[in-house]
Amino acid sequence: MWTSSQVAKHCHIQYPIVQAGMAGSTTPELVAAVSNNGGLGTIGAGYMSATQLENEIIKVQQLTNQPFAVNLFVPEPIHYDMVHVQQMKHTLEPLRQSFGVSELKIKAHDDAEFEEKIALLLKYHVPICSFTFGIPSEHIIDKLKQASITTIGSATTVEEAQAVEQAGCDMVVAQGSEAGGHRGSFTSQAHTHLIGTMALVPQIVDHVSIPVIASGGIMDGRGVLASLALGASGVQMGTAFLTTTESKAADVHKTAIVNAKETDAVLTNVFSGKMARGLYNRFIEMMESTSVTPLPYPIQNDLTNDIRSAAKQKGDIEWTHLWSGQGVRLAQEMNAKQLITKLNREVQQRMHTLID
Amino acid sequence: MWTSSQVAKHCHIQYPIVQAGMAGSTTPELVAAVSNNGGLGTIGAGYMSATQLENEIIKVQQLTNQPFAVNLFVPEPIHYDMVHVQQMKHTLEPLRQSFGVSELKIKAHDDAEFEEKIALLLKYHVPICSFTFGIPSEHIIDKLKQASITTIGSATTVEEAQAVEQAGCDMVVAQGSEAGGHRGSFTSQAHTHLIGTMALVPQIVDHVSIPVIASGGIMDGRGVLASLALGASGVQMGTAFLTTTESKAADVHKTAIVNAKETDAVLTNVFSGKMARGLYNRFIEMMESTSVTPLPYPIQNDLTNDIRSAAKQKGDIEWTHLWSGQGVRLAQEMNAKQLITKLNREVQQRMHTLID
Repeated sequence: MWTSSQVAKHCHIQYPIVQAGMAGSTTPELVAAVSNNGGLGTIGAGYMSATQLENEIIKVQQLTNQPFAVNLFVPEPIHYDMVHVQQMKHTLEPLRQSFGVSELKIKAHDDAEFEEKIALLLKYHVPICSFTFGIPSEHIIDKLKQASITTIGSATTVEEAQAVEQAGCDMVVAQGSEAGGHRGSFTSQAHTHLIGTMALVPQIVDHVSIPVIASGGIMDGRGVLASLALGASGVQMGTAFLTTTESKAADVHKTAIVNAKETDAVLTNVFSGKMARGLYNRFIEMMESTSVTPLPYPIQNDLTNDIRSAAKQKGDIEWTHLWSGQGVRLAQEMNAKQLITKLNREVQQRMHTLID
Repeated sequence: MWTSSQVAKHCHIQYPIVQAGMAGSTTPELVAAVSNNGGLGTIGAGYMSATQLENEIIKVQQLTNQPFAVNLFVPEPIHYDMVHVQQMKHTLEPLRQSFGVSELKIKAHDDAEFEEKIALLLKYHVPICSFTFGIPSEHIIDKLKQASITTIGSATTVEEAQAVEQAGCDMVVAQGSEAGGHRGSFTSQAHTHLIGTMALVPQIVDHVSIPVIASGGIMDGRGVLASLALGASGVQMGTAFLTTTESKAADVHKTAIVNAKETDAVLTNVFSGKMARGLYNRFIEMMESTSVTPLPYPIQNDLTNDIRSAAKQKGDIEWTHLWSGQGVRLAQEMNAKQLITKLNREVQQRMHTLID
């Protein structure tokens, strides 16, 4: 029975389906709908302030009494120089003018806020916490363990998965190259190694003893069953949930995904400074044609954020990020309950087809 | 039953497992062993002359009466300029001297030889022919059809798969980005779109009506079952067969694969002029550090071929190509019969695990 996997048991959920913590695109309604229908909803808190996260947790807990997760970005040292910032500011100036966005803001990136978010998980008894862009320090892992909070790390190579296990995380997401949004890579050069899900999952399964959650290119019951065949104990799906009714992605973004081809979803670091997969558009085209390289994450993210928000508000898909994985031709618009019901039905049907 | 797939039925084989036509690494013994043990062996005839291919076919037919395939590279227009050739010759000169390889040879690339090879398939009643780097002309497809020869095309995107079907091929290999050796891409820019197997297979399955053979990162029974779950009717495996006893790959190449990590298998065009995946070594490092770009395929292949052969003969893995997919940590040395037996056992076991 696919519903009796280690991930389902450990997280006390019916189906081992994790809705990815898509920073900027989750809503309390999405998280609660996934969890209320047997999956694991995740608050994408990567870019949230502690105050925003607190509000989200409270809303989710009003909407569901089922387990859910919070996804956090692990802070990392930031190095950049102001000459580079000025060059990028100059490059982006025509866009800022065009969208009427006047002011450049580089946020304070403060590790203290990360600690505050961790404290909120304890305060509100959030059952599961997943991490992207690295592994938190030992004292944070210890704190979460003492509070019986399940921790999930993310890895794009076998070595990263081993590091996640050694740090004491309870599970690891194996993020294949097909995945939409940011690459979770955190070791040197790992972002250049684009290991596909088919190759990544069984190799990670063989090299760690914690449950492995497959991600990257999984869009329907076929992908879920394939992941389990590879030895994964569950799946994490982003793009499939991004086009659900409850997701905060703009309608034009959802429509763009549903109409896209697999070759449209490209890897780029022009939006945030970190490699991420999204649909090719004029922003990527323009930035790739300039000689100014993107600043490191999260500075590039700060520099482009207002422009992208303004474009998104105008329904303009050419000048904002359109995160998407490579499985776009399988994307459909429906609500989260319909998606989970469909996945379960497809897994059952496909399993019967294979046996007969 | 996985053995009753369309690929198995159509090709009259027991297991829907195709040994990839690894040009330069297949032997009549490998092809026959795969076919004698229920899979589909393939003569990798991409670089063979018509005379060499004829000898190989005769030898294979002496060793097996089971169906087997021949893989051919579809010829394409070649454009290059001699200044570029001179620059590359100059770049490679220290290597030529070091390996005592005196003479630069650019072969005659003659479409007539391709026609001769096609004629051999008819003469020797070869049951199956697969194509890489494109689709042969209509008159060749017609000729093969009239002789009841099954044709298999190769695709790296949905559009390429549709083109393969429209040309009249009986089946299509969906080559995911994890695959070792050459990318089979043949449409504009397709080589830049590295669609992973997990995303590629179901999208191709949904857009063609011919049977789809999954390839890329499939190394064991888990990968075979995952491919079938994704909707494929069979699998094609390269790296897993490259390390078998019967393969012509050098022992040092086999050992390098068995000891490699998934991040060692990189994409490069420095060996042949076309993108191919192999283990990172000093040849790639050197060529990537020079300002001279590789010539188009197959000219770059001609210019580097003697050096690579000399290195291979000396057991030097730093200056030859070491084709390999991303699933390297799953590679094992055994004979072809043991591999096929192992795959069948693993598929059965994994299927039972999923049902229980």
